[in-house]
Amino acid sequence: MTSSPAAASPAAAAPPMAVVVLAAGVGSRMRSALPKPLHRVGGLPLLGHALAAFPAAKAARRVVVVGPGEAGAQVAAAARAAAPDAAIAVQAAQRGTGDALASALPALAGFREGTVLVVYADTPLLKPQTLAAMAAARAAGAGVVALGFEPPEPGRYGRLVEDRAGLARIVEAADATADELATPLCNAGAMAVDAARLPGWLGRLDAGNAQGELYLTDLVGLARADGAPCAVVRCGVDEATGVNSRAELAAAEAAFQARARAAAMAGGATLTAPETVFLSHDTRLGRDVTVGPNVVFAPGVTVEDGAEIRAFSHLEGCVVRAGAIVGPFARLRPGAEVGPGAHVGNFVEIKNAVLGEGAKANHLAYVGDATVGAGANIGAGAITCNYDGANKHRTEIGAGAFIGSNSALVAPVTIGAGAYVASGSVVTRDVAADALAVARARQVDKPGLAATLRARLRRAAERP
Amino acid sequence: MTSSPAAASPAAAAPPMAVVVLAAGVGSRMRSALPKPLHRVGGLPLLGHALAAFPAAKAARRVVVVGPGEAGAQVAAAARAAAPDAAIAVQAAQRGTGDALASALPALAGFREGTVLVVYADTPLLKPQTLAAMAAARAAGAGVVALGFEPPEPGRYGRLVEDRAGLARIVEAADATADELATPLCNAGAMAVDAARLPGWLGRLDAGNAQGELYLTDLVGLARADGAPCAVVRCGVDEATGVNSRAELAAAEAAFQARARAAAMAGGATLTAPETVFLSHDTRLGRDVTVGPNVVFAPGVTVEDGAEIRAFSHLEGCVVRAGAIVGPFARLRPGAEVGPGAHVGNFVEIKNAVLGEGAKANHLAYVGDATVGAGANIGAGAITCNYDGANKHRTEIGAGAFIGSNSALVAPVTIGAGAYVASGSVVTRDVAADALAVARARQVDKPGLAATLRARLRRAAERP
Amino acid sequence: MTSSPAAASPAAAAPPMAVVVLAAGVGSRMRSALPKPLHRVGGLPLLGHALAAFPAAKAARRVVVVGPGEAGAQVAAAARAAAPDAAIAVQAAQRGTGDALASALPALAGFREGTVLVVYADTPLLKPQTLAAMAAARAAGAGVVALGFEPPEPGRYGRLVEDRAGLARIVEAADATADELATPLCNAGAMAVDAARLPGWLGRLDAGNAQGELYLTDLVGLARADGAPCAVVRCGVDEATGVNSRAELAAAEAAFQARARAAAMAGGATLTAPETVFLSHDTRLGRDVTVGPNVVFAPGVTVEDGAEIRAFSHLEGCVVRAGAIVGPFARLRPGAEVGPGAHVGNFVEIKNAVLGEGAKANHLAYVGDATVGAGANIGAGAITCNYDGANKHRTEIGAGAFIGSNSALVAPVTIGAGAYVASGSVVTRDVAADALAVARARQVDKPGLAATLRARLRRAAERP
Repeated sequence: MTSSPAAASPAAAAPPMAVVVLAAGVGSRMRSALPKPLHRVGGLPLLGHALAAFPAAKAARRVVVVGPGEAGAQVAAAARAAAPDAAIAVQAAQRGTGDALASALPALAGFREGTVLVVYADTPLLKPQTLAAMAAARAAGAGVVALGFEPPEPGRYGRLVEDRAGLARIVEAADATADELATPLCNAGAMAVDAARLPGWLGRLDAGNAQGELYLTDLVGLARADGAPCAVVRCGVDEATGVNSRAELAAAEAAFQARARAAAMAGGATLTAPETVFLSHDTRLGRDVTVGPNVVFAPGVTVEDGAEIRAFSHLEGCVVRAGAIVGPFARLRPGAEVGPGAHVGNFVEIKNAVLGEGAKANHLAYVGDATVGAGANIGAGAITCNYDGANKHRTEIGAGAFIGSNSALVAPVTIGAGAYVASGSVVTRDVAADALAVARARQVDKPGLAATLRARLRRAAERP
Repeated sequence: MTSSPAAASPAAAAPPMAVVVLAAGVGSRMRSALPKPLHRVGGLPLLGHALAAFPAAKAARRVVVVGPGEAGAQVAAAARAAAPDAAIAVQAAQRGTGDALASALPALAGFREGTVLVVYADTPLLKPQTLAAMAAARAAGAGVVALGFEPPEPGRYGRLVEDRAGLARIVEAADATADELATPLCNAGAMAVDAARLPGWLGRLDAGNAQGELYLTDLVGLARADGAPCAVVRCGVDEATGVNSRAELAAAEAAFQARARAAAMAGGATLTAPETVFLSHDTRLGRDVTVGPNVVFAPGVTVEDGAEIRAFSHLEGCVVRAGAIVGPFARLRPGAEVGPGAHVGNFVEIKNAVLGEGAKANHLAYVGDATVGAGANIGAGAITCNYDGANKHRTEIGAGAFIGSNSALVAPVTIGAGAYVASGSVVTRDVAADALAVARARQVDKPGLAATLRARLRRAAERP
Repeated sequence: MTSSPAAASPAAAAPPMAVVVLAAGVGSRMRSALPKPLHRVGGLPLLGHALAAFPAAKAARRVVVVGPGEAGAQVAAAARAAAPDAAIAVQAAQRGTGDALASALPALAGFREGTVLVVYADTPLLKPQTLAAMAAARAAGAGVVALGFEPPEPGRYGRLVEDRAGLARIVEAADATADELATPLCNAGAMAVDAARLPGWLGRLDAGNAQGELYLTDLVGLARADGAPCAVVRCGVDEATGVNSRAELAAAEAAFQARARAAAMAGGATLTAPETVFLSHDTRLGRDVTVGPNVVFAPGVTVEDGAEIRAFSHLEGCVVRAGAIVGPFARLRPGAEVGPGAHVGNFVEIKNAVLGEGAKANHLAYVGDATVGAGANIGAGAITCNYDGANKHRTEIGAGAFIGSNSALVAPVTIGAGAYVASGSVVTRDVAADALAVARARQVDKPGLAATLRARLRRAAERP
């Protein structure tokens, strides 16, 4: 397995941090009924990416600022579910980013020593180490630390203007002079501020600018006016990718995937065609795992060493043990566990079911709410009938059992170890170990009748 | 839904236009038995793209010029089907583009006031607004309007040579001087000509050039010689993409897809991985539709607001109503209609069948020539047996019915509302509402027989 | 079909060649338990690509140099299987590329006239014509011929330093001067050496360099010191692609695919979205074959003229005859043969089975170890039960037979021509030609029982 990240060092060791996630933007360019922070990248909402960049273990407090109304309530509910530690602050009206951060002040009451780190819920690709660098620069004495990047087309971005003393000010493009517009260094949004002085600076923001809003970016000028030095931490263009439209969402997804694919390969997995493999934020691929073209990993998947995921497979919320073979055309749904060396083949769906070591379900089968013993063989077209129209029931299949093709196991039912279910049977009662169960009709042949029928049907087809 | 294009304004409002589609090229570099104009981009033949760029409603006349023989007849048949209004003209021999247009003159007889717009059947990405701009430039007084673009490698393209009076001449690369070859502006092919003077100019073309053919491009020189000003309308490189080989066909498809994906996202659909979604010329995606990776939309698909199309789905000629969920691994064939909030799951095929609101067919089922009532549940592996070897028959399933797993419904047959078909049953007669139908054999168990059989089969396997 | 390559001209015609494949590298950056030469590109191990570049018919001798231990034994076994003509030499310790080649000397004993061509097992994209050019340059009098390319970032590559007399020396980047590092021409690895002088030069290599290893590249300096001229043959950057990590393996795969897709299109196949089609080293596509998006060709596939392979299909070791239609969502496994004009549809698996002309298996079927006659129809969900838990058995289906939906054919079994198997039947005995076989239970309906059951099940579901 790829190694798990080192356990977080205790927050006490570093200067105290509070994190504020600004998630109140309306996102009208998304043209969506879903609030922008809940759109997903790598299977995780943008809000979740913002929260993950600085987890609870490293922060003394976390605050999520949401907008008013139904959209804000949706974002707040998602924030509570994803981060029970976080306080929710509501920005009542859209009066700018400075106002958004001011909405968080009550939740920050009493937090006066340390750093307030501000991140936006629409930049899902920021790396934790970048935020750590911002925190370090703040702790080293800066009043405000901004995050800068140099996009190929700076156009609409705010500019970071530096002088000999460090960061001098941030200007919105709409308010910038021609000289300022020529600065290649742009504002990526995230900001680290001296907690002690934040309330005072926020109180002095004013709305005398092109948009008539309170700009968070004006904190830099206020800090400098108070004699506090300001600094810039730089990040790559991909990290600064912001999401304001569906096309930008797709671009962020593409950047996320490129990063995740490279990490999977560096960890020792073979991706035959990495550009066709879609990973989630929490996908775990072991060493010598082979992934064919066109595989989708929805959230919650672990694949152990040496397993093979063949083309056109779709996995979600499941575990594939070492040496197992999955696909092509396999669907593993939540709760599926494919045992060591087991096989799941084409047009097979596994849901909430455990396949024991070396078990096989290779063709056109549905295995749901079931336990399948080691070495058992599920025939082509076999189905566990787990739903009676109102409730779900379990099927237990013993080790070494053989479930014939096109048979149906009506749950709750147990097939004993080594038992044999004849092809095409509908099994409604438990079958003892090593017993043979048959539930099908006798074959009756009617000589010549097919020819007669065919002639009759063709006449019918020719009738007007 | 994305808004439909504004209704075409009546042709009478604009100066009269005749459109000639040149579709007589042999396309030998395609190495195909299929004539080049019938190869497809975005699910539509190249010929269809050429016809769609200037539809019947906007043109006083439309003419399609086809080649001789069987290939020409195939193209003519396709033109008649796609554009019943269009006249067909046959170019008897391959004597050049000027000769091709001359073949259309009989079909243009009497059309003496206005513009003749000439387009090629192998440039499927021309935008209607580009052709409209050409028409406007012609109506403003130009004798001939050419279409220009600036490719990164002008190499083999004809060059548009301009002087102070506008477009001076078009020279084929093979006939060009070094100076002319240095011109970056190339000929994209389409041309708008003064209808009144076209016959005269065509009559004066001569074949004194490298190819020994009548060049349509020489019209510019003739117009200028007669004192008629000529003009150039410019278009983007992608619009000028021409198709002469399979590789260029693939490039045109890629350009088409890029354009269609961007439009879908701008309209408010989320495409997780747009580069893996394949759209057709007539695909309609509503707002907040979500499309997973690897989805193919063949022609004739409408997806309403908020529906979700999951990975590895293939849709053609179908409607997905608001809030429905399709896939992963679903196949919707022509005539499928998935009702509001209905589900079609993995390895399920729906053909010529309507699923009512909230109905479900989630696993390994075939539903063809059927009506499925609201809230009905089609079990895993259930199949409508719609074909008797000669004719197709319908299956009617009432609201709230429950069709057990692995059952077969032999059409024509009706399952009443709220009825229940037991797993593994073969239903050949109508089932009344709220009735339970069972058609399966009793289960018989033979203790120990599986063990005996297994031993015997293994001995057989070991025999030489 | 695309034409097969011209038969190899007899080796006798050209000056004699011995080929040494260096396959002893440990490949630790792959992070794999599988030796690097056995990782695959285009479905063929890297070792196989190296052997294919100069096949047995053109070489007087072939030698594969493997490393010590288990990894070396694995590579040796693969080499023996792929090239029974090749001698295996073991390089006992990792003492550099010069030492690796020296390990091959015993296997080259007596080969004193001609050229020894050295290739690496990790550059799978070298073209045969490039190696032929190296051989020709050697035969024209060079003592050593190196292969050069100009990468955009020469960084870590060895440099080829030329002077007026040709190639002067090769320097590793670690040992190069600043002047030498400025040379854009880099060493691609492959080398052709005068067989007569090779042993002497190898004996004079010394390890006085940054790595303390015997460098094969020092042969150039030794040759020049002996007055033998040396030369460079140049190749494209893609040809020189080397594989040292999973990411480079993926890059080599991408380069291979780009080349294979272009060749398929040039041969007259339409690939709607070539970037989503995955070909193998031996895929053969005929003229006017159409391949939809997302199709995987594993090794051993031939598709004849005019056949159509639709989206989401996976083919391996099979033949698709002219005019057949496969997919979408079809799986053809080894031994499948789809006859002329036959159809294999969605969620259908064919394995070791022949479908006759015009036969159809369009929905959710499994056809394994079977022969299906011309025009036969395999219904939705029909399954050949070919495995009894220990052995595989065959199913024979006659021409024009109709196998009803959801039926199971328990092999060994024969269905006669024109016979009809009723839907849902389990057939265990042979069915005569034109006979009708039924093996299913009578339908019994219980009025009102579904409503009663539903109420009871819902009460159960509501119980705590």
